[in-house]
Amino acid sequence: MSQIITFGEVLMRLSPFGNKKFIQANTLEFYFGGTELNVGLSIANFGGNVKHITCISDDFIGDTAISYLNKFDLDTTAIVRSGRPLGVYFLEVGAVMRPSSISYNRSHSAFSSIQPEMVDWESALADGSWFHWTGITPGLTQGSFDTLKEGLKLAKKKGMQVSADPTYRSGLWKYGVNAKDALVELLHCSTIFIGGINEMNEVLGTEYGYTNEEFIEASKLLMETFPSIEKVFDKIRTSINASWHKIRARMWNGEEFRETQDFDITHIVDRIGTGDAFAAGLIYGLQHFDDYKSMDYASAACALKHTYEGDVNYATIDEVTRILDGNVSGRFNR
Amino acid sequence: MSQIITFGEVLMRLSPFGNKKFIQANTLEFYFGGTELNVGLSIANFGGNVKHITCISDDFIGDTAISYLNKFDLDTTAIVRSGRPLGVYFLEVGAVMRPSSISYNRSHSAFSSIQPEMVDWESALADGSWFHWTGITPGLTQGSFDTLKEGLKLAKKKGMQVSADPTYRSGLWKYGVNAKDALVELLHCSTIFIGGINEMNEVLGTEYGYTNEEFIEASKLLMETFPSIEKVFDKIRTSINASWHKIRARMWNGEEFRETQDFDITHIVDRIGTGDAFAAGLIYGLQHFDDYKSMDYASAACALKHTYEGDVNYATIDEVTRILDGNVSGRFNR
Amino acid sequence: MSQIITFGEVLMRLSPFGNKKFIQANTLEFYFGGTELNVGLSIANFGGNVKHITCISDDFIGDTAISYLNKFDLDTTAIVRSGRPLGVYFLEVGAVMRPSSISYNRSHSAFSSIQPEMVDWESALADGSWFHWTGITPGLTQGSFDTLKEGLKLAKKKGMQVSADPTYRSGLWKYGVNAKDALVELLHCSTIFIGGINEMNEVLGTEYGYTNEEFIEASKLLMETFPSIEKVFDKIRTSINASWHKIRARMWNGEEFRETQDFDITHIVDRIGTGDAFAAGLIYGLQHFDDYKSMDYASAACALKHTYEGDVNYATIDEVTRILDGNVSGRFNR
Amino acid sequence: MSQIITFGEVLMRLSPFGNKKFIQANTLEFYFGGTELNVGLSIANFGGNVKHITCISDDFIGDTAISYLNKFDLDTTAIVRSGRPLGVYFLEVGAVMRPSSISYNRSHSAFSSIQPEMVDWESALADGSWFHWTGITPGLTQGSFDTLKEGLKLAKKKGMQVSADPTYRSGLWKYGVNAKDALVELLHCSTIFIGGINEMNEVLGTEYGYTNEEFIEASKLLMETFPSIEKVFDKIRTSINASWHKIRARMWNGEEFRETQDFDITHIVDRIGTGDAFAAGLIYGLQHFDDYKSMDYASAACALKHTYEGDVNYATIDEVTRILDGNVSGRFNR
Amino acid sequence: MSQIITFGEVLMRLSPFGNKKFIQANTLEFYFGGTELNVGLSIANFGGNVKHITCISDDFIGDTAISYLNKFDLDTTAIVRSGRPLGVYFLEVGAVMRPSSISYNRSHSAFSSIQPEMVDWESALADGSWFHWTGITPGLTQGSFDTLKEGLKLAKKKGMQVSADPTYRSGLWKYGVNAKDALVELLHCSTIFIGGINEMNEVLGTEYGYTNEEFIEASKLLMETFPSIEKVFDKIRTSINASWHKIRARMWNGEEFRETQDFDITHIVDRIGTGDAFAAGLIYGLQHFDDYKSMDYASAACALKHTYEGDVNYATIDEVTRILDGNVSGRFNR
Amino acid sequence: MSQIITFGEVLMRLSPFGNKKFIQANTLEFYFGGTELNVGLSIANFGGNVKHITCISDDFIGDTAISYLNKFDLDTTAIVRSGRPLGVYFLEVGAVMRPSSISYNRSHSAFSSIQPEMVDWESALADGSWFHWTGITPGLTQGSFDTLKEGLKLAKKKGMQVSADPTYRSGLWKYGVNAKDALVELLHCSTIFIGGINEMNEVLGTEYGYTNEEFIEASKLLMETFPSIEKVFDKIRTSINASWHKIRARMWNGEEFRETQDFDITHIVDRIGTGDAFAAGLIYGLQHFDDYKSMDYASAACALKHTYEGDVNYATIDEVTRILDGNVSGRFNR
Repeated sequence: MSQIITFGEVLMRLSPFGNKKFIQANTLEFYFGGTELNVGLSIANFGGNVKHITCISDDFIGDTAISYLNKFDLDTTAIVRSGRPLGVYFLEVGAVMRPSSISYNRSHSAFSSIQPEMVDWESALADGSWFHWTGITPGLTQGSFDTLKEGLKLAKKKGMQVSADPTYRSGLWKYGVNAKDALVELLHCSTIFIGGINEMNEVLGTEYGYTNEEFIEASKLLMETFPSIEKVFDKIRTSINASWHKIRARMWNGEEFRETQDFDITHIVDRIGTGDAFAAGLIYGLQHFDDYKSMDYASAACALKHTYEGDVNYATIDEVTRILDGNVSGRFNR
Repeated sequence: MSQIITFGEVLMRLSPFGNKKFIQANTLEFYFGGTELNVGLSIANFGGNVKHITCISDDFIGDTAISYLNKFDLDTTAIVRSGRPLGVYFLEVGAVMRPSSISYNRSHSAFSSIQPEMVDWESALADGSWFHWTGITPGLTQGSFDTLKEGLKLAKKKGMQVSADPTYRSGLWKYGVNAKDALVELLHCSTIFIGGINEMNEVLGTEYGYTNEEFIEASKLLMETFPSIEKVFDKIRTSINASWHKIRARMWNGEEFRETQDFDITHIVDRIGTGDAFAAGLIYGLQHFDDYKSMDYASAACALKHTYEGDVNYATIDEVTRILDGNVSGRFNR
Repeated sequence: MSQIITFGEVLMRLSPFGNKKFIQANTLEFYFGGTELNVGLSIANFGGNVKHITCISDDFIGDTAISYLNKFDLDTTAIVRSGRPLGVYFLEVGAVMRPSSISYNRSHSAFSSIQPEMVDWESALADGSWFHWTGITPGLTQGSFDTLKEGLKLAKKKGMQVSADPTYRSGLWKYGVNAKDALVELLHCSTIFIGGINEMNEVLGTEYGYTNEEFIEASKLLMETFPSIEKVFDKIRTSINASWHKIRARMWNGEEFRETQDFDITHIVDRIGTGDAFAAGLIYGLQHFDDYKSMDYASAACALKHTYEGDVNYATIDEVTRILDGNVSGRFNR
Repeated sequence: MSQIITFGEVLMRLSPFGNKKFIQANTLEFYFGGTELNVGLSIANFGGNVKHITCISDDFIGDTAISYLNKFDLDTTAIVRSGRPLGVYFLEVGAVMRPSSISYNRSHSAFSSIQPEMVDWESALADGSWFHWTGITPGLTQGSFDTLKEGLKLAKKKGMQVSADPTYRSGLWKYGVNAKDALVELLHCSTIFIGGINEMNEVLGTEYGYTNEEFIEASKLLMETFPSIEKVFDKIRTSINASWHKIRARMWNGEEFRETQDFDITHIVDRIGTGDAFAAGLIYGLQHFDDYKSMDYASAACALKHTYEGDVNYATIDEVTRILDGNVSGRFNR
Repeated sequence: MSQIITFGEVLMRLSPFGNKKFIQANTLEFYFGGTELNVGLSIANFGGNVKHITCISDDFIGDTAISYLNKFDLDTTAIVRSGRPLGVYFLEVGAVMRPSSISYNRSHSAFSSIQPEMVDWESALADGSWFHWTGITPGLTQGSFDTLKEGLKLAKKKGMQVSADPTYRSGLWKYGVNAKDALVELLHCSTIFIGGINEMNEVLGTEYGYTNEEFIEASKLLMETFPSIEKVFDKIRTSINASWHKIRARMWNGEEFRETQDFDITHIVDRIGTGDAFAAGLIYGLQHFDDYKSMDYASAACALKHTYEGDVNYATIDEVTRILDGNVSGRFNR
Repeated sequence: MSQIITFGEVLMRLSPFGNKKFIQANTLEFYFGGTELNVGLSIANFGGNVKHITCISDDFIGDTAISYLNKFDLDTTAIVRSGRPLGVYFLEVGAVMRPSSISYNRSHSAFSSIQPEMVDWESALADGSWFHWTGITPGLTQGSFDTLKEGLKLAKKKGMQVSADPTYRSGLWKYGVNAKDALVELLHCSTIFIGGINEMNEVLGTEYGYTNEEFIEASKLLMETFPSIEKVFDKIRTSINASWHKIRARMWNGEEFRETQDFDITHIVDRIGTGDAFAAGLIYGLQHFDDYKSMDYASAACALKHTYEGDVNYATIDEVTRILDGNVSGRFNR
């Protein structure tokens, strides 16, 4: 009854050590990630009951991915397998003014072959109370869009909470569907909007600026346009450079505007998946706390994620809570 | 005037260290390989002038591949780039009775998008005297088959030597062309056959056994069927287990049968690319030695390759010659 | 109804890379193992439904151990936690005539604090059909002996199969109980004896030699002395040196004597847990095959384990079967 | 006549690379450390003559520890061995707002078995002029407390300088002795107090605040209460977060109060052992410089330690002096 | 016609990982570098056509160096070989207030044996339009000074641009020639001066200070003294500590003075070769841009180099341009 | 009174991991070695009291070497330092028929600068009872030859035992002295000859063959020619290939001929220093056992060394003795 559902591609991440480029390396580290998976694993680490639905390859790489997910005690029973290979992304980690670079090998991956009939949504959502989706999945293929749509419709019918992170990524949406149209359709099934001015302008066709006032205006218009949406949460990242960011968040829940303190991340360990950690913190928070504390929890979770290697936030509820209680000096736990 | 041409896919090889499985690992080694490339690089290490023709990805992984080939002083000027990702293969290295396992991610790779019009064969073969091909390339896609065919026809027209390693791999040939028909067509452009009973039976539709007598019979029939073929070289591998092999070779050059001694490879370091090292030794040998010494050179090169990590044979002409001179005790070079 | 139960300590294994000694190293590899756990994980890899019962530390090392077990899809629901640290063993891997060396840090470990009241055996064995124990557990502490005894009594009462690997290790049994007395008591709850002449002489107080004839005699006496025991399986290891072993097995099932072929393991990758792989193969086999095929399966599983790094046998049922079908040459799986 | 004596447990430190958690790792780095040992090794690196007294395991891990200490040219002749294992601690290194975490496996270690009769203090202190102790040792077991007490009494009788770092750690003191009573008894044998307001409040039963004025008041009361104590040195750490600290120090030597500049450690490499480096700098300093320069030297040594991996300060006297001379820009030494 | 020529020693750099000292390590990373080579490789990465001239060892280390240079598609055809070993330098990387330390093993290296007759300058400079030299080469041996001088004379005669980085390093100049005299002689062949107040004072025998006004004065005097010099470029480094630098540049081109913004390098990855990256950026820039944009390009290139491991700047022209366009926040490239 | 003296160069060994070539690598392992040092360290590991005399560099590499020797509790008090760099050798490890390759960088090393006046032989040999030398040292430079000669003369005068391993290496002896003349002069100070037919033929100018009979003849002639020599020990290595050797030994002690069994080293881990381990075993043995047991001990020590990584034999007296007692099956030490 209280299972959180995430749906999306599992990718293998391949990266040289430290700040090396591939051209300098002959060894790599690998992780498994994917924006929706990262959200699911992060919630599982908070102690939530999470099921991830995806399609992975039917080879020893797929077996390795399953084994990796099992480490986190995630429900993997609804995962389907395909003869196609697992998607891969290659990462070169930048520093200071050098940006990180990513190259994808996912366009004919196992997940890209997914079709609605491959997922038994009735059974998959049987215990579901929350469904989280992002703008990556509908941008991949017609099949992944259709499959997501079917899941969201059922989620809506069952009265589940549906959180949307409608990130628009320009490298996707190559298969013929218009991004805005697709996102609009999916947002009508959603109840929580996780996104900022850019995402709202994208789906509203507006040109709001970044002030708090305009954020409130945009949120109001969004909630008028998409009546199912009850709350808007926006994570704001200030990049001093690739190694040093600041994070804060703001929200409009239909009644009040609030924003959090700044979290100053002076020495970033791994930036991948930090937005997903925010979403995870929010989803976990909204099930246990009020809106404002949820946003605070999400921001602290996001900040903490910058200190873990890999795509996943390993922070537990206690560790996030300690940050919220003001223990940010990083003294030893013995 | 004396350039050796190799044509085929460049793959990134990803493998855990030692005998680990992916499920046990979080770090990998990577190399670049591919059967025809391995032949080319091995010949370059012998001191030959080699041009490799291929299509690789237009990202930092493709840049890394080019840089890797440049290390060997290979002519990379005819390489074309594609927006598709580089092909990848995953390798788990076995031992004793445990076989190594491979999983491919190549079916929509940069090379799989190659089409005849992407290669300027006239220019590419301008200085070519030898063209080497294998049964992998025509088995990938219609485009790779057609592109190879066009190259081979020009090579034949120019009177180049053409060596064929018509390995049949059952995991390929998914795109609609019959393997035997394709290989037969390509063999008619070829002058040197590198293969054994299985390969001859495959293209002849026969069922010869493995004795020397039947090898000679099969070779004679092959040379009747394919009049362009002048010589047949067969490498025979005896596998005690995955860690211990013996290698020998035999040949029929239209006039005489010869076979080599056994090379006893008691502690295999890396088995990948050992057949390619045989082909490379043969191609290099036939340009410098008589048939028998070429076969001997090829066998010694093949044996030596088992002692190098990665897909490429690093042996120089001096090192192979030292083996042929009987120095197999592995004493120090100071 | 068909769950296999294993009960015993989980140890962290710490070892330098390759054949290095600690005195030469500053980095280590770690694994989790333990003789009964190894049996359980190996059966899980064959596809069996396994529950492992143990007591581990309540810190991030214990969390890591749980996560490690989850990778294998083992039932970890009956595991209890303790404020004491997880047991550790340090391993230096030998080669040729140099033996491997082990040093233990386990005498005040989490598991050593186990007491019968900490395990709810009724619930733990609810779905159990098979219980496997070894001579290590009763040799640790009074509490571990008592806890095991209670579990075995319930298993006997429920009519479960009980396999015993009554290895006697002289470094244990420091807490005041006589090894022979304890093992005798536990064997009276057991149905399958996995052990050889040394183990039978130990519990019978006899001095049989190693011939097949004496093995049969000893087995008969054992089965008279312990009427619950139905079958005896003996794995015979011939050590040429630390890097090269041969394995075969023999059995007496009350009616017939059989022995297997020799498996020649010319290049050992990791010897730890190979006996456990034999036991696992046997337990899995006896649930699916006849006695002789089970012994053959167990021997092949044991041989294969020598090719995996770490304590666990990763071989699947298909991989073991391939060995039994005679495919021991280690050719590629593509 | 001029040997510095340190007495305390030697622990093996096990830690994943970089900022990884154990749950993400399969390889570890190891070091040997322990608060009193760190002080001793750091003084040895300054060029001091140091003897470390401890009890370590009688296995290859203990041999490795001895070999490690020998690297630093420490006097290890008074070390005794035990059949119990060496103590271990596991470390996960945090960053920014994530604290580092430590889990200990030391409660039944070789050192925890130490008893007064195992150390021949007369012989061990024969050439001793200085004895350094910390609040860790008396907090471990009755035996370690008693052994330390015996050593300190002899040191006092011989008129040696005795420096005390009476850190109170709440995870210790489980064996039945009251921490305050024990520390008070030991402080009566001590001449130099290395600690701040918290430590003074602990042993005085007071509640002084952190201002310089209160520090002076507390120091005066301390020196009244413990007439053997001549000087108080306090290291003040300001933690911006786990990756960025500032260090300064202050002192009261019975006559004057002084404090040092701030050392700004913007990119911490390894925080472990930095307090020990301060103590080592002070002990070395007080043997060669006046009080104020000693405190300055200690602060610079402490700051430098943050830049070395592992528990030990590798800084030489020249390197510390260079910092004191104002060369903190980190230009190359060629 | 447009080849850039660099001439100087190739050194193997050997360094422990991270901030480890050799005394803590048993593994090393290696790179190849050398100040003039770094300039050449950096220009090659910008897309320039570069030939590096040097003398390297005639062993497998020399082969490895050649292979390393080939990765960058550098023209290595003018490299000569020697029976002497390749020069080596050992590096310990500092942090915060700990400086990095370097120890050289180069005084009898392959390059130190170079003599004018070993380089065929006519042929080597056949396509050359630019020659870059530094103060390291003439400081090594009489032979290296003479060989450089001969090259520069020919470059001057051919009307090539000649850039000089007359760094004076006190550890060199042991062979009997006066540094100032040598540098003066070489500067009379040069057209671009890359250096600051220290370098100008060194060759002018003056004592100018560091203000912009004095920089202009010094530059004017320099250009009077060395009429061939047309422009002076000065890179100014502000070291907060070993981990945090700021970079800016200034110039006097005979007509106007300009200076760049500060680049704030808050988290240095590798400081080696950053000055060389400045020179490379300048040389590349002056061939494509005006003076001011060239200086800006050089500064951005220098700043970016601090983010790459090893001696070489991997930045492409696009990446440097992006920095100049103000994209310094390090957002992802996907 | 009973100190064993070794004298010779300490070299840093640099080698890629496993069987990689430098051209494939970017990381290395390093060790310190040198034939006489290896002998000394091996004897120290047996428990002997050893002093090594050498000259090393006065930089952090030299400090690291000293720290390395200290690990073994070797007497390093007679080591002198030089401004020249430490000698280095680069190693590529072969396998099967591929030989290992070595390249030296030692001709202007710290040790090559040694001169008789740099060593205070009277003091250095004060407690010496045995002096070991090899043919490497006199082959390096006039200074190293002269220094050794002076030491040996004093050793002879003091009546010390002197063991000679007069290996002739053709890459040395470049400085003007005739190898045979030098070795003859040094042998006249020696009492134990460790060498075979080749070494005897070299110094006798004879052409004996390899049979036992000729070995005895040669030994007799050697002992006539060099009356100080009392015994001849010859280690015979049979190389199946670079990965698989057999070792046995024979001796003539003036009265009887004996030879040992074959030790079959089926999986060589590291071949470097195995001859030194033989010498060490012999020296240690002759101080504790009779001639035949000493030779047996030396052979077992030599065989064991093949199983340790690096140049040093880590075997203890117990471990060698266990081999001699027939325990060569490599079973666990727990």
